[in-house]
Amino acid sequence: MPHDVTVLTERDLRGIVALDLATVAVVGKAFAALASGKVVMPPILSMAIPEANGEVDVKTAYIPGFEGFAIKVSPGFFDNPKLGLPSLNGLMILFSAKTGLVQALLLDNGYLTDIRTAAAGGVAAKHLAPQRVETAGVIGTGAQARLQIAAALLMRPIKRVLVWGRDAGKSAACALDLASQHGIDAEPVDDPARLVAESQLVITTTPAEQPVLKAEWLHPGLHVTAMGSDQAGKNEIDPKALAAADLYACDRVSQCEKLGELRSAIEAGLWNKGTPPELGDIVAGKKPGRTSEDQVTICDLTGTGAQDTAIATFAMQRARTAGAGSVIST
Amino acid sequence: MPHDVTVLTERDLRGIVALDLATVAVVGKAFAALASGKVVMPPILSMAIPEANGEVDVKTAYIPGFEGFAIKVSPGFFDNPKLGLPSLNGLMILFSAKTGLVQALLLDNGYLTDIRTAAAGGVAAKHLAPQRVETAGVIGTGAQARLQIAAALLMRPIKRVLVWGRDAGKSAACALDLASQHGIDAEPVDDPARLVAESQLVITTTPAEQPVLKAEWLHPGLHVTAMGSDQAGKNEIDPKALAAADLYACDRVSQCEKLGELRSAIEAGLWNKGTPPELGDIVAGKKPGRTSEDQVTICDLTGTGAQDTAIATFAMQRARTAGAGSVIST
Repeated sequence: MPHDVTVLTERDLRGIVALDLATVAVVGKAFAALASGKVVMPPILSMAIPEANGEVDVKTAYIPGFEGFAIKVSPGFFDNPKLGLPSLNGLMILFSAKTGLVQALLLDNGYLTDIRTAAAGGVAAKHLAPQRVETAGVIGTGAQARLQIAAALLMRPIKRVLVWGRDAGKSAACALDLASQHGIDAEPVDDPARLVAESQLVITTTPAEQPVLKAEWLHPGLHVTAMGSDQAGKNEIDPKALAAADLYACDRVSQCEKLGELRSAIEAGLWNKGTPPELGDIVAGKKPGRTSEDQVTICDLTGTGAQDTAIATFAMQRARTAGAGSVIST
Repeated sequence: MPHDVTVLTERDLRGIVALDLATVAVVGKAFAALASGKVVMPPILSMAIPEANGEVDVKTAYIPGFEGFAIKVSPGFFDNPKLGLPSLNGLMILFSAKTGLVQALLLDNGYLTDIRTAAAGGVAAKHLAPQRVETAGVIGTGAQARLQIAAALLMRPIKRVLVWGRDAGKSAACALDLASQHGIDAEPVDDPARLVAESQLVITTTPAEQPVLKAEWLHPGLHVTAMGSDQAGKNEIDPKALAAADLYACDRVSQCEKLGELRSAIEAGLWNKGTPPELGDIVAGKKPGRTSEDQVTICDLTGTGAQDTAIATFAMQRARTAGAGSVIST
């Protein structure tokens, strides 16, 4: 039946949703809802298009209490840079959770995914990092390296950031960006072991298929957020590290055991602690998070449809308030 | 990255895509491609929203040779009629198969799904119905009852249509619509056994959970297309009928064994003929279809993402030619 649909472009969305405390709070609320057991979140639909070195993922979740649910489509076409195009794209569609009618098209080209992914890092830092984080390290030098540090800065009084990537030039550029954007001390390092040793919070943001963070580098008072692995085959954290940590948490166990760091640890026969807690259990206070400054904690983020529903609903609320976007009558 | 996206509304789409021979040919091409083994078609993503008596399905497929792939989202919210809204809605998104960029938003409110579903019935009739179909019967009285008969009329010189549904008033209304729309003899019947006995082509279009067509009604020279079952729990055709027919074909075996008539036959222990052929195998000439006018054939349609990709790509081509739709710069 013809009805009105709000269309929000990337530009519209950049004007109304930023990576700030409100966004982190909304994503935290989605994680807490996941812990309620009432969220419906089906397995990710994933399709490979080998002829174009491409893949597309579809995520969704219904969260009781949110007026809509999002369906998020994320294509990744890895030959695009040769054509002068970004690898990642996509959009979200917001449906009424009461009638199923399309409410809004969020043509974000992946912007909201970037923001909600970084916001999950913020939620992890809030609940699992030591209170005192003077130095934060980031492994990887892409968009999420920058955004994850921005989210961490919202949560802890970080004074210094260390950056390591395989390409020293990109590490230097990333450090420069972070320093100028946030007015903090940020420097590239040439040794990831040193980065971890000097940091209280480390975020891994790579598509690595071999670990970039070794178990022997763990030290008291360290929190690691691993957000790079989101597919079987990816692995950023030494499988030995997960059981060695005092606390290892998943964004969603059913996803991490297939797509995250937990998969590698299970496959290596190195996970022996049963079902790990989920970040949402910790946010909701149902399971303990960090209980002392000296603990070693690891959080494994694969990205959930609940985050997509949360950010899309939030963006639509902001759009209404701001009068942003245009309307199409279908 | 910001780029141009074509937006086609239901009205735009109704102006450029109809249920005609060209549409049936495009959907037939998609089935033939399925038989090539080169199509990538992941399992359907399905999410139930019990609090709103709703569900949402997401389908997709990549077909080599088609310039785009569609992601189709179909919400079904079955309390909507109480609110004066239709139960079924949805949209399709067309992506470039080369870059993954969004090419078009097809805000069809389910129109293209209706058309591609009926077109699949046309493909089945073309390849499996006897050449001589004087009388066609339809079981069910909704939108697909009308559209499936329209598709059958494109394929066979049908002179008379019989309609049966549980509600005699709806059967009469459906027959009246068919007669006036196509200028044919169409009449409601009060006995589905008589409908089958007098027809050479029968299409079942119901959400039945108990068979509406009995195995003992099968007769030489009959083709049955069962298009209602698309979920575990639905069942239109007596499970005994599948093995009793000379030929039983699926639109997609992996779907029919979970969501179609084949599921009921397997669960009842009444399927003993191994892996059935797919409609695409028959379209592509890789497996035999009907080989004599006297055979009994059954085709089980659950609806495939390949049909969605085919119709969305076709609609976009038509839109370009017609200059239809509007453009949004994301």
